[in-house]
Amino acid sequence: MTKPAYAAVDWGTSSFRLWLMDAEDTVLAERRSSEGMTTAAQTGFPQVLTAHLSALAAPSDLPVIVCGMAGARQGWVEAGYVDVPAPLPAVLAGAVRVSGIDRDVRILPGLAQRHADAPDVMRGEETQLLGALQSAAESRQIVCMPGTHSKWVTVTDDLVTSFSTFMTGELFDLLSKHSVLSHSVAGAASFDADCPTFLSAVKAAFRAPQRVSNILFTVRSGTLLQDLSPTDAAARLSGTLIGLEIAGALGSAAERPVIRLVASGKLRSLYEGALSVLSLSFQTIDADEAVRRGLSAAAHKILLAKPEEKP
Amino acid sequence: MTKPAYAAVDWGTSSFRLWLMDAEDTVLAERRSSEGMTTAAQTGFPQVLTAHLSALAAPSDLPVIVCGMAGARQGWVEAGYVDVPAPLPAVLAGAVRVSGIDRDVRILPGLAQRHADAPDVMRGEETQLLGALQSAAESRQIVCMPGTHSKWVTVTDDLVTSFSTFMTGELFDLLSKHSVLSHSVAGAASFDADCPTFLSAVKAAFRAPQRVSNILFTVRSGTLLQDLSPTDAAARLSGTLIGLEIAGALGSAAERPVIRLVASGKLRSLYEGALSVLSLSFQTIDADEAVRRGLSAAAHKILLAKPEEKP
Repeated sequence: MTKPAYAAVDWGTSSFRLWLMDAEDTVLAERRSSEGMTTAAQTGFPQVLTAHLSALAAPSDLPVIVCGMAGARQGWVEAGYVDVPAPLPAVLAGAVRVSGIDRDVRILPGLAQRHADAPDVMRGEETQLLGALQSAAESRQIVCMPGTHSKWVTVTDDLVTSFSTFMTGELFDLLSKHSVLSHSVAGAASFDADCPTFLSAVKAAFRAPQRVSNILFTVRSGTLLQDLSPTDAAARLSGTLIGLEIAGALGSAAERPVIRLVASGKLRSLYEGALSVLSLSFQTIDADEAVRRGLSAAAHKILLAKPEEKP
Repeated sequence: MTKPAYAAVDWGTSSFRLWLMDAEDTVLAERRSSEGMTTAAQTGFPQVLTAHLSALAAPSDLPVIVCGMAGARQGWVEAGYVDVPAPLPAVLAGAVRVSGIDRDVRILPGLAQRHADAPDVMRGEETQLLGALQSAAESRQIVCMPGTHSKWVTVTDDLVTSFSTFMTGELFDLLSKHSVLSHSVAGAASFDADCPTFLSAVKAAFRAPQRVSNILFTVRSGTLLQDLSPTDAAARLSGTLIGLEIAGALGSAAERPVIRLVASGKLRSLYEGALSVLSLSFQTIDADEAVRRGLSAAAHKILLAKPEEKP
């Protein structure tokens, strides 16, 4: 295989992904594991990283670019935040070099919105954003990045102007596992984005988001009074939370811009289904590719630049 | 002490309360424990009840009236539901006699709303309602009963016409204990209803309920970026969920009727604070007294009526 030029790592709270990349940004090999920040904080960040690099027989001097929770206060080395409004490339200048490891490892910072009434943070999504955004005809772009903590970002003329986090994925997880609704969804099969219960729940929550904590309870009462199946219960729960998120992110503004949806896998199809049933225009960008493209851009700027250009 | 005439029991999911009452409905003695349905389903409902009655030296033939989760499918004996719209006294006619125990024990049914789009159930609150409602000048009354699953009930001319459950208390519990917000609220002290963070959160969620899953995340980002204290974090979480509930219950209707708030203790003061800051009119009825009055009304009709009048 071609010679690897760098390794790119997306280090989340509960997941670890590493790609071995050549100088032309071709993926040579990939590793995925559940050794996210939570696990690595116990077993050691350098140990986790070195084990994955060794498994791929990576050269001992291969440089590594990292985004995500490895840069959190409870992570490997705190990489701080770049405050918005900010141009995305400012993230590259804020990368922190890890000491105490025998190779060049840099961790990218997150973004912070230090607004008194709307404080917000992201870590990892800024790199996805860096890889996802292309010059657009519109001056103002709205980006949706679904997940445990979904991010909606407004970019105006290549400046990240504001963003909002919605706890959609975590609420789904909490309610399915720990609430009274857990009895309703126990044994649910996977459902698709064209599931009618999912789509009606998206519409119901989008139309009446203020009633969300009541709509959620109808999952329970639906089981008791209407024989709602576990799969339909899970679909209603998911659709309700996604409909609420979209209502909150778009607000009551009459303007409905094309949404850049940065997503992969199951979440991609659910959000595509939800946006479609609400008649909202969107354009999908693969989230896995986006984060890799963002990490590659950072690697070229930070790790592979000629010595005199390195920060 | 006067001779006890009956025992009144409010048997919730996680709590058990018993009052020994005389024929004039004076409380002679009280027992409170955490042997709710969940515990009693393990240790045995008759055993729990008998132990508490024995501790009070109650006569072995003392009749007992019960409301709440003891009548659920997973409870002692299923007491079913009375379907709304229904006059509240219909609940009395639906009481179920428990067999296999050597005294007269009756369990009151719950209420069910078998509406395709808004299925809902209550169990226990119907008895509170029975004790709380008095003839009012207005034909239409709105009743708010806060709790783990808050109930908002519309009563029109003594007929329960509709009701809605909001998962406010359970969401507070889940988010404080199991979510990313648990780090923010860990070590929180108790806060009062006049806490400014609580009151601003009520207003913010009431004004923009569609953004609730974002407002909730500001508890986390407030900790990270603004040194939000654990107590203020808990106050913001609580205020957000209560503001959301009130927004959902009242909707966008211009009409703002006097709300009958049926509540006790901490919840009473928080909801009074929340309704006040939103400039909503309310009248408070003590929830403990209300459930006891409801149980007393049921006891007189079902247990203490002359034999020929007993159902």
